[in-house]
Amino acid sequence: MSTTNRRRSQIDTSTIKRVAVLGAGYMGGAITFPLSDSGHIVRLWGTWLDDDIIDSCRSTIHPKLGIPLRQGVETFHSNSLAEAVDDVQCIFIAVSSDGFVPVLKRLFEVQRLPCSVFCLTKGFVEEGRRVKRLSEWAAKELSKRVGEDQFGWVSVGGPVKAVELSRMVPSASVYGVSGASLREVSRHFSTQYYRIVRCDDVAGVELSSAFKNVYAVGLGICDGIYKQRSEAEYHNICAILFNQGVAEISTIVEQVGGDRSTVYGLAGLGDLYVTGRSGRNRKYGELIGAGGQPEETYERMILEGDLAEGYDALAKGVRWWEKEQKRSLDELPLLKTLHRIVINRKKPEKEIYSFVKWYGS
Amino acid sequence: MSTTNRRRSQIDTSTIKRVAVLGAGYMGGAITFPLSDSGHIVRLWGTWLDDDIIDSCRSTIHPKLGIPLRQGVETFHSNSLAEAVDDVQCIFIAVSSDGFVPVLKRLFEVQRLPCSVFCLTKGFVEEGRRVKRLSEWAAKELSKRVGEDQFGWVSVGGPVKAVELSRMVPSASVYGVSGASLREVSRHFSTQYYRIVRCDDVAGVELSSAFKNVYAVGLGICDGIYKQRSEAEYHNICAILFNQGVAEISTIVEQVGGDRSTVYGLAGLGDLYVTGRSGRNRKYGELIGAGGQPEETYERMILEGDLAEGYDALAKGVRWWEKEQKRSLDELPLLKTLHRIVINRKKPEKEIYSFVKWYGS
Repeated sequence: MSTTNRRRSQIDTSTIKRVAVLGAGYMGGAITFPLSDSGHIVRLWGTWLDDDIIDSCRSTIHPKLGIPLRQGVETFHSNSLAEAVDDVQCIFIAVSSDGFVPVLKRLFEVQRLPCSVFCLTKGFVEEGRRVKRLSEWAAKELSKRVGEDQFGWVSVGGPVKAVELSRMVPSASVYGVSGASLREVSRHFSTQYYRIVRCDDVAGVELSSAFKNVYAVGLGICDGIYKQRSEAEYHNICAILFNQGVAEISTIVEQVGGDRSTVYGLAGLGDLYVTGRSGRNRKYGELIGAGGQPEETYERMILEGDLAEGYDALAKGVRWWEKEQKRSLDELPLLKTLHRIVINRKKPEKEIYSFVKWYGS
Repeated sequence: MSTTNRRRSQIDTSTIKRVAVLGAGYMGGAITFPLSDSGHIVRLWGTWLDDDIIDSCRSTIHPKLGIPLRQGVETFHSNSLAEAVDDVQCIFIAVSSDGFVPVLKRLFEVQRLPCSVFCLTKGFVEEGRRVKRLSEWAAKELSKRVGEDQFGWVSVGGPVKAVELSRMVPSASVYGVSGASLREVSRHFSTQYYRIVRCDDVAGVELSSAFKNVYAVGLGICDGIYKQRSEAEYHNICAILFNQGVAEISTIVEQVGGDRSTVYGLAGLGDLYVTGRSGRNRKYGELIGAGGQPEETYERMILEGDLAEGYDALAKGVRWWEKEQKRSLDELPLLKTLHRIVINRKKPEKEIYSFVKWYGS
């Protein structure tokens, strides 16, 4: 179990009225819909990269989601973080993994804790030569500032595409919660179209969410290799990769004392099911599979407004596995294959075929 | 464990040369490719419904797969079953679930056992008022004729679309094997593009294969409901159904002493991943979701050459669960939902929404 898993929050759960969302991109924008529809006062704060988004939200629509926010959702520019989080009981973090540390550091400067943090960000944090899980990093930083009982942490995972959530397509999320009282809080945010499943496996949800982006890149690579051909569909090989991805996430989660059942639920297989079919990580993989250079393609996608977080999670996740967990990449043959393709620039088709040859041998 | 799981086959595994495939449809045709490419003499026998297919295979191509069979594959019309199975060591059964009992009864009349049976057929058998798993029925019938040691049984599952297999798209299959010597035999059929994973959970593979067709109908129903709309994609709700489908197959498999890990592998989640994305069961579901009448649609698809086995597996599988296993359908809320839609003709959208409302409550 991670350290955060064992904490018990002392936050009063009967008075959740005001909720802040940090990060106004796809998911930050989308989560305001169920938060608002479940009866909360919602404040959406945009980072220094989101000021244009906030402008657009105020005048017409959320530019990424393509529709207006719910009436009553308050919006805040990047220079108004203190106002945004003033007197809120819950903060949803919905920035990219790159933005996680700078935003939380700014938050610590202005926020009077205690409060509880619901983390939608997925990935790892780099600090010097160390790679850490987001909740690990946050627990250490938070405990410097307040007593361990004074904050709560929830890792939010599961198969929720932002645009669909904003259109009220029925969606289910899993909340990995670090304390009994926060389990109750989580219940407050569900609506008829936004279902919340709760568990106490923070690390399991967090690692599943980070690594499903990596394996979704793998499924995209298959698309890139096979879409160019006309002889047949290629569901069979995708299923091998999907299957192996889930199995490897399970190995990873169990390494840190997380629960296999978290992986075999919404956080793991459910989310990989969706992420492997659509979205930026799959698209990134497809470009690589079709012959794109990994780093250049990643950079070009960013310029086009698409951050493929699986690229970063692959690089950092492998270092985390090897350096922090002291485990061999040979235990995760598909992750090793993806690392060879994306980081070591080996030929996708040859690597995928080697993997398949290993499979079932 | 099923009774077949415990059997040990006495078949000599060093001499597998000739293999018969019964049923010349999609999967019967496709499996001849790896069987032939792995160095076996392959005999493809067509049922009384397949005589035209055999004619076509002899003159030009396999009409469903759209390509010629491998050179050397021998073909047999329905009236030549005895010749087809003469002196073979392994028989692959690749008929529809409807054809399973009549074909096996004819086989018993002409085949001098011992030999081993590799069952690609998925579903249930109805006998009087009883519903049985295929391997259960076969074990009883075979033990009437030969000693328990004189035959072996392998349930073949996993995400293998026939057309893709025939094009050598990398594919992985799981063989649920009833004895140690047969585990070795299974290895003989693998090729570079056809990977075989072996386990000893016959019942787990068999039930996963049957029920993934049912849950794929459910995913198709979602397609039918949502494709008509233009407001958004609908991956989120598909992921809920996918997730719940895997969880319910796990409940079903554990009920008969099968292994949860079978379900969380190729036989369960791998196969549902593929079957929910393409194929006849998904298509059937889509037609129902879009407003088609369940029974009429099933019949019409048969006339068009598409048998949606999930329809039959749903009806029989629910009876098997309730009558044979003495369990309540309330334990399987998604299966119950699908039964209400497909068998009781309730409105798809309303039922799916009720299910979502239950989910995470």
